[in-house]
Amino acid sequence: MNPTPDLISKQQNFTDSHFLSTNSCKIKMPSEMKNYQVIAAEKKAQQWDKIPKEWRISPETFQDANNVMEIPLKCGLLDETESKITSDYDATALLEKLKAGVWSVEQVTVAFCKRAAIAHQLTNCLTEIFFDTAIERAKKLDLEYGQKPRGKTLLPLFGLPISLKDSYQVSGYDTSTGLGCYVDEPAEHNSALAAMLLDLGAVLYCKTNLPQSIMTGDSDNNIFGRTLNPRNKLLTAGGSTGGEGALLALRGSILGVGTDIGGSIRVPSVCNAIYGFRPSVGFVPHDGVRDLTTPGTDGIRSSAGPMATSLRDCSLFLKTILQAEPWRHDSTVVSVPWIDLKPTRKLRIGVAQNDGVFTASPPVRRGLKKATDLLRGNDEIEIIPINLPNVQSHYQDIISYFTLLGSDFARTGEPVIPSLQAIGLLSVPGTTLQGFFDLNVRRAEAAKAYHKLFRDNDIDVILMPPAPHTAVPLDCWTKAAYTSLWNYLDYPAIVIPVDQVQDIDSADDLSNAKFGPDDEGLYSLYTGPEQYKDAPVCITVIGYRHRDEALLKAASVLDSVINQV
Amino acid sequence: MNPTPDLISKQQNFTDSHFLSTNSCKIKMPSEMKNYQVIAAEKKAQQWDKIPKEWRISPETFQDANNVMEIPLKCGLLDETESKITSDYDATALLEKLKAGVWSVEQVTVAFCKRAAIAHQLTNCLTEIFFDTAIERAKKLDLEYGQKPRGKTLLPLFGLPISLKDSYQVSGYDTSTGLGCYVDEPAEHNSALAAMLLDLGAVLYCKTNLPQSIMTGDSDNNIFGRTLNPRNKLLTAGGSTGGEGALLALRGSILGVGTDIGGSIRVPSVCNAIYGFRPSVGFVPHDGVRDLTTPGTDGIRSSAGPMATSLRDCSLFLKTILQAEPWRHDSTVVSVPWIDLKPTRKLRIGVAQNDGVFTASPPVRRGLKKATDLLRGNDEIEIIPINLPNVQSHYQDIISYFTLLGSDFARTGEPVIPSLQAIGLLSVPGTTLQGFFDLNVRRAEAAKAYHKLFRDNDIDVILMPPAPHTAVPLDCWTKAAYTSLWNYLDYPAIVIPVDQVQDIDSADDLSNAKFGPDDEGLYSLYTGPEQYKDAPVCITVIGYRHRDEALLKAASVLDSVINQV
Repeated sequence: MNPTPDLISKQQNFTDSHFLSTNSCKIKMPSEMKNYQVIAAEKKAQQWDKIPKEWRISPETFQDANNVMEIPLKCGLLDETESKITSDYDATALLEKLKAGVWSVEQVTVAFCKRAAIAHQLTNCLTEIFFDTAIERAKKLDLEYGQKPRGKTLLPLFGLPISLKDSYQVSGYDTSTGLGCYVDEPAEHNSALAAMLLDLGAVLYCKTNLPQSIMTGDSDNNIFGRTLNPRNKLLTAGGSTGGEGALLALRGSILGVGTDIGGSIRVPSVCNAIYGFRPSVGFVPHDGVRDLTTPGTDGIRSSAGPMATSLRDCSLFLKTILQAEPWRHDSTVVSVPWIDLKPTRKLRIGVAQNDGVFTASPPVRRGLKKATDLLRGNDEIEIIPINLPNVQSHYQDIISYFTLLGSDFARTGEPVIPSLQAIGLLSVPGTTLQGFFDLNVRRAEAAKAYHKLFRDNDIDVILMPPAPHTAVPLDCWTKAAYTSLWNYLDYPAIVIPVDQVQDIDSADDLSNAKFGPDDEGLYSLYTGPEQYKDAPVCITVIGYRHRDEALLKAASVLDSVINQV
Repeated sequence: MNPTPDLISKQQNFTDSHFLSTNSCKIKMPSEMKNYQVIAAEKKAQQWDKIPKEWRISPETFQDANNVMEIPLKCGLLDETESKITSDYDATALLEKLKAGVWSVEQVTVAFCKRAAIAHQLTNCLTEIFFDTAIERAKKLDLEYGQKPRGKTLLPLFGLPISLKDSYQVSGYDTSTGLGCYVDEPAEHNSALAAMLLDLGAVLYCKTNLPQSIMTGDSDNNIFGRTLNPRNKLLTAGGSTGGEGALLALRGSILGVGTDIGGSIRVPSVCNAIYGFRPSVGFVPHDGVRDLTTPGTDGIRSSAGPMATSLRDCSLFLKTILQAEPWRHDSTVVSVPWIDLKPTRKLRIGVAQNDGVFTASPPVRRGLKKATDLLRGNDEIEIIPINLPNVQSHYQDIISYFTLLGSDFARTGEPVIPSLQAIGLLSVPGTTLQGFFDLNVRRAEAAKAYHKLFRDNDIDVILMPPAPHTAVPLDCWTKAAYTSLWNYLDYPAIVIPVDQVQDIDSADDLSNAKFGPDDEGLYSLYTGPEQYKDAPVCITVIGYRHRDEALLKAASVLDSVINQV
């Protein structure tokens, strides 16, 4: 049993070699290509040039700190207004200020560019930097719509800065996904979502780091290097949307967009105390994302979704996208309207302590207990204990689906990153057409079983830990436990931060891991609060397939009770 | 090029043998099974017993007539009220009468059972007959809700008789699909849709005939035999939902439910002048339908949808199903709410004369011209001529997808029906896993191309002939031309009757078929108005994927202009 947020080509047994071959690079022949280290050095130098000299901070001020969360406000680069703009609001509130003309779009854009530049210097979270283009666009928006009071009817996301995972194509900039062979190939078109966000008035200003293969829990690659967790450099920032996680944690962004095929939005949200929402597949445009998967493998599909500092920002994102009729922008979307659902009854919450395969670690268990205790006290909420059926066998099939995805890596003789090596799935055998159909049959049976779980218990959502553990030490997030189940079922899921590791969260006896050796192995990762200092503790709320709006409404009620927001 | 509404197992080359093997029969071993002719004779005798003696009509009154449309009212079995109930209303109007208590549910049920019995004697359209159960349920509904005025809040489909294609499981009755090895195995559960319709207050009273394999354009099998076209016995009643087609044409039903994977709702609608609607896949519950396809082949999927005598009845059906939240009843549904869309602009209609592969026959061309001429005169409608891109290659891929579906036939040494033999796809080679992924890639490209067609022309719907021809002579509907394209793209499509073959519809020169030998072959089927006497002429309106409600709203405007309804 070894689910993973990531996947590896089954055709190639990487364990035989620490070097990825170049045979999938579609653009350049190996002989034409530079050494990946040369490519990386040049790319990093270009990247560094994109950060204005006056926005650079001295490494001495932070390099010895494990937790750099305070640096952005302490480093002295942000003036009072910039500190306020970037610190005091979520996207919903900031959008109101922008629309009211409290600040110009330029002011807001510059503030976030500056803070993103700081965040990048602290955690290496950015890939493409286009502050100049963003500021130019901001000025144009200011000019076009005036300021205080704004003249014309404003676009829904007027002036809002939004950051994107590197895999989204943004016209004029690389979509290298951290692979040498895609460097220096500026995109000719925007991905459907980037185009939509611009149409809706947003300001795009940077793209963010991700793992080689876009399939591991550590955002690390040979071109940009590793993104660090700003709360604790010894723990992973998560992946595959880890650059967003670190950037949002440091408020270099307040609204970012990732993708999630096994947990890639939710894992970095857990690691960075972010609200991260994986919608049902096809709700948010995904066309034009370079996800490195083999085209046509319509088994488990990647979903695009927001990461934010509040739950209502996740709703803002989905609502704005759905109201703009994404089917007009992308032939792959599922066209489900936003209907302003109103609550009609007491919320019924199914609570699962774990997945029946992996035991949650002590701080994670405490986080869930804290949340459920708070919810139990609320008259509008009913708690129903549930057990998730058959997860072990679903994890097996998830791995089989994932092995189908990954034969389209592009390579330049780059070494395999440690987290990709650590996944240990490098030689999982493939399957046949009949094997694929059999996977689909079992998946349909699982859909039926979980439908029955929802209906028999008459629950609105499931509440459980988002993963068996918090952020773990570097290159140790090797299983997509808990998260990947919801990709398999295509159920929408949202991560909600509730706490962080405390001194009381002692490691306890391995005998608490009751599901066998794999469980014990994962459980033993937690060694106590010292190593896990400041690691966020989160919960996840899972809705029924396609009932994303209902999930967001329910999660918002839970969040308001748990976090008193 | 040879698309077809039906499919054949690729594993078996039926051309080598006229007899289906028994190797897929899951329930009984060949040695335990009776000869299919014995099974058929017993089943037909049981079926005949289900028709009360006093509802039987003398074969002499109709057996020499090619057109039996007048017989139900002329045969003397229906009293004045029964004639009125079954003749004068569509489902929407009848439902109003039922809710107002104008007639009891029992009166309405008996009237339709009686007329269905007549229709069956005329066309052999029924499989399972459960008039007794239906009348019992009707009495209970009358008792529970009182009459004139009805006491309690009434269910949405209160007392409405609805007929179902044989492949829907109805508890207590066979789902034989016309195959001997499934006879005498009463279903233990209702299919999700049957359960939902009962929950919504409908009265189920019969199931209807379909072809062996459920994949041809002639509803003919070795157990129940062939369903005849009540307008012209020499022409096909269509398939695979042909029993519904004939039953509805004779008003033995006013609302039936079929399934459509290549045209199986639309083909019999064309043959019988019925409004037939194929929704986007997953909008209407499909769970528990015995469709004889190999489980897990998630390429082109079957869609459940209504057949009716008015367009608003198709809307009534979809609206009622969607408002009842089908996700609660079936784990395979796409949960899209009905939102009471209001028109916001002039309708833009893309009109295609044909698919660029097959030329429409003279009466079909005349029907489309009649419709577009009427629409052109309307201020609220704009006509935009369009051409469908690349259909020839899509048909090739449709065949490849279909060959994946059909290895689960259950058999009892029964001969292959002529229409299954005639399809000529009996030895199409299968594919590999990579071949399947390649199909998916090309299908995604097609989705992009047709999305572009919709967006570049800014059209709301496409209007075109539903097929290159009207109902054709028996066993000649061998291609799923036009219809299957919309299954491939998963676009919702509705058939609207507009006329019938007239004396002016002479056969014209083969040189009018400009797309090559296949086109000429199909075009030559039309020999003039004599052979095609009384064949209905229809159009089809196609909407964008998942925009089923928008399609129904647009089609309703077109129908009101064309048919002055």
